[in-house]
Amino acid sequence: MRILVSNDDGYFAPGIAALAEALGTIGQVTVVAPERDRSGASNSLTLDRPLSLRQTSNGFYHVNGTPTDCVHLAVTGMLDHLPDMVVSGVNHGANMGDDTVYSGTVAAATEGFLLGVPSIAVSLVSKSATDFTAAARVARDLAERFMRNPFPRPVLLNVNVPDVAYERLQGIRVTRLGKRHKAEPVVRSETPRGETVYWVGAAGGAADAGEGTDFHAVANGFVSVTPLQIDLTHTGLIAPVFDWLQR
Amino acid sequence: MRILVSNDDGYFAPGIAALAEALGTIGQVTVVAPERDRSGASNSLTLDRPLSLRQTSNGFYHVNGTPTDCVHLAVTGMLDHLPDMVVSGVNHGANMGDDTVYSGTVAAATEGFLLGVPSIAVSLVSKSATDFTAAARVARDLAERFMRNPFPRPVLLNVNVPDVAYERLQGIRVTRLGKRHKAEPVVRSETPRGETVYWVGAAGGAADAGEGTDFHAVANGFVSVTPLQIDLTHTGLIAPVFDWLQR
Amino acid sequence: MRILVSNDDGYFAPGIAALAEALGTIGQVTVVAPERDRSGASNSLTLDRPLSLRQTSNGFYHVNGTPTDCVHLAVTGMLDHLPDMVVSGVNHGANMGDDTVYSGTVAAATEGFLLGVPSIAVSLVSKSATDFTAAARVARDLAERFMRNPFPRPVLLNVNVPDVAYERLQGIRVTRLGKRHKAEPVVRSETPRGETVYWVGAAGGAADAGEGTDFHAVANGFVSVTPLQIDLTHTGLIAPVFDWLQR
Amino acid sequence: MRILVSNDDGYFAPGIAALAEALGTIGQVTVVAPERDRSGASNSLTLDRPLSLRQTSNGFYHVNGTPTDCVHLAVTGMLDHLPDMVVSGVNHGANMGDDTVYSGTVAAATEGFLLGVPSIAVSLVSKSATDFTAAARVARDLAERFMRNPFPRPVLLNVNVPDVAYERLQGIRVTRLGKRHKAEPVVRSETPRGETVYWVGAAGGAADAGEGTDFHAVANGFVSVTPLQIDLTHTGLIAPVFDWLQR
Repeated sequence: MRILVSNDDGYFAPGIAALAEALGTIGQVTVVAPERDRSGASNSLTLDRPLSLRQTSNGFYHVNGTPTDCVHLAVTGMLDHLPDMVVSGVNHGANMGDDTVYSGTVAAATEGFLLGVPSIAVSLVSKSATDFTAAARVARDLAERFMRNPFPRPVLLNVNVPDVAYERLQGIRVTRLGKRHKAEPVVRSETPRGETVYWVGAAGGAADAGEGTDFHAVANGFVSVTPLQIDLTHTGLIAPVFDWLQR
Repeated sequence: MRILVSNDDGYFAPGIAALAEALGTIGQVTVVAPERDRSGASNSLTLDRPLSLRQTSNGFYHVNGTPTDCVHLAVTGMLDHLPDMVVSGVNHGANMGDDTVYSGTVAAATEGFLLGVPSIAVSLVSKSATDFTAAARVARDLAERFMRNPFPRPVLLNVNVPDVAYERLQGIRVTRLGKRHKAEPVVRSETPRGETVYWVGAAGGAADAGEGTDFHAVANGFVSVTPLQIDLTHTGLIAPVFDWLQR
Repeated sequence: MRILVSNDDGYFAPGIAALAEALGTIGQVTVVAPERDRSGASNSLTLDRPLSLRQTSNGFYHVNGTPTDCVHLAVTGMLDHLPDMVVSGVNHGANMGDDTVYSGTVAAATEGFLLGVPSIAVSLVSKSATDFTAAARVARDLAERFMRNPFPRPVLLNVNVPDVAYERLQGIRVTRLGKRHKAEPVVRSETPRGETVYWVGAAGGAADAGEGTDFHAVANGFVSVTPLQIDLTHTGLIAPVFDWLQR
Repeated sequence: MRILVSNDDGYFAPGIAALAEALGTIGQVTVVAPERDRSGASNSLTLDRPLSLRQTSNGFYHVNGTPTDCVHLAVTGMLDHLPDMVVSGVNHGANMGDDTVYSGTVAAATEGFLLGVPSIAVSLVSKSATDFTAAARVARDLAERFMRNPFPRPVLLNVNVPDVAYERLQGIRVTRLGKRHKAEPVVRSETPRGETVYWVGAAGGAADAGEGTDFHAVANGFVSVTPLQIDLTHTGLIAPVFDWLQR
């Protein structure tokens, strides 16, 4: 099995090293990741300049672009074969609920999926993550399952893993995305040169974290697996908007 | 009515000037847009540095960040009141089907919606757009309709306007997003210093452009209005993935 | 006379508008400036991506690069004729003493000079500059003098203008660069996400501001004109270093 | 001896690893270098955002800024003691003649010098450099000499090393900077989206490469050591400019 690995924390992040190591035991891994931290990059694509691809001494490739750029470049221009899977992560921090809109980790997997490849985004639910091995092992479990028992068509899975030892995980829950409260307001600050600047504030707390959500699963010690789709159409509103436009 | 206007082409783009002018006839407009072209920025948020806000001589504000940053900063830190609407555009070029995943124009409207404000993204379906007035007038029509006849809860609308005179538009169609074929491969090039670099290739052509899609509406001269949602959960796959994990 | 105008504050800055207007009365002006504020850019050249050139509705060109990129691109690829002069500014803030090492304003003029064109950098010594007309007029006076009475070979002049009305300027002094004290230390700060970050601190105060320096001239109400060179060789140390290497 | 090591190729470059290893045998080395390739950065300082400092598993620090930022941050905010030396490099490629104006390698050393520390910039004169050990050993020789036999006041040395084995170096020459011909024109190219873009062209060939210059020393197999200064005043033009302004 050929596995393309990427992330949004940068090629040097401990989470991607753990992931590449775990997946390397079951398949042929190629790592192509951003040259620097691109957290929050969402699905941004670099259109105004070309991308460079470089290889480090440990064999990882890095690209001066976004997570989406990395997977796009690897799949459409660099790899000789279409990979069998794209696995993105292990992200340092959760990607649940509305986080998925902004997440570069999810975006890397989304790009794989858009290019026709089964793809998984894996995040460790922890602020001070130091041990990525449990999450990496969960990713390997899922990848092995894909090998043994492929899905009839490509899927896109968003996986969040509680920050406990592998043995202490309570199992896997298939979930829907929860919802967060609105983000905190921007934080005003001043530069040493007297200019006012604004930091984007913290993400909101969980607003819909009820049973069935990713928030709920993780809070109860389960790995959360959410199948994602990329069609943003709000089907349920097509008729109401039609009516509204008649009035 | 207070209207926040943004885009992804930059505050200096002719499309945003046309939009601000058209909306200025029906409400109080504040323009907050990126300081430079950020096409393809998707929902990326700037987390590793603070944002600056500056005003130009024509009253527009610009931010050294993404479209999402602009709306986020305006709504959570700059404006005294929550705006009644966010309108993003008029984008130079279509945002249909899978384009919506990458689009900064759609992202600016999405951020408004996530912050609780009815939001519209408006794009002109044209490669060599020179006249944004028809699209701007369509945006004004929709905004007026929101004033006269508000929706019970905030909606997010993605609007694509054919590049013809306003009088030649065939009407409005409420649509679902179509699908594109996979993007073209990256284009290999060489720098004057002999390094290999790669340009992201062109978007794929329309793959699902059947009746009911945005592609179909626009191809037939209609304005396409697609209601969007931001929950990426693939509800239909929750049960199949559950089964798959049992095997 | 053909004059190329650039700066480091960006093409939209009031200082470059004043400069272009003043020089437009005596020659044919082309403005090519950075698309965003690039203060502190020094002589940096963009080597890892290509540059785009765009024109605004007022005829100014902007480049997604540094001040050096702007002049380099204009002179070696865009203009049909070598300009007769490059004038950079009017910068918002002084460029005296060691500032010249970091200044993008000086760098734009330096690039003109390196490409064989007489070049002037013009800065307004003010933190809250609102009126650039006096400094722009000084630039025009100097450019006129170049027309009437050309120097035998290209020169590079660094000009600093006190922030007073043109009529209140005490005259012109030809100066050497003074020296600043070491810069203030970096200022430690924390992001809303709890990361420690560091702002570059303020420039040091004047250390050598004695008679003959740019600091002294400006402090006494005179325009300071410092001829610059770009050969960094410390000729006076060639023999001592030779001796030192023998020991 | 405490030695601060930086470069402009990025903290992961083989040249800085070789340098840190060689200097580690004679002193206590701290590496603080850019997180990505910043060749051509000159003395640019980052003023519009704060800098982050991170450490890799091998102990090197990297900063999301320029070479100048790295040395500035290390000396004024991070290190407990002023270092005894700053050594920048080993750069992949020559920094001779006018290159010094644009070089980030030289800039890192210049920042050390401006902050009062004896500083050396070391470059390997090679396009396809694979072995940095000879250049790193030359740097160590010079640093040892500084230990044994300090200069009465801080100096700034620009060192270029031919790409041959250490044993085949012909010795050391103390040189002045040569001159290059004007740079090649920008190279026009087109993006896959049909936009015209421009790459900065190659540096010019040597124009003044006569005896006594850095070009001449290196061409003859010698290490070139050029003492630099940072006062750009063209002393010899002060009187002529004064006369010119009287006319």
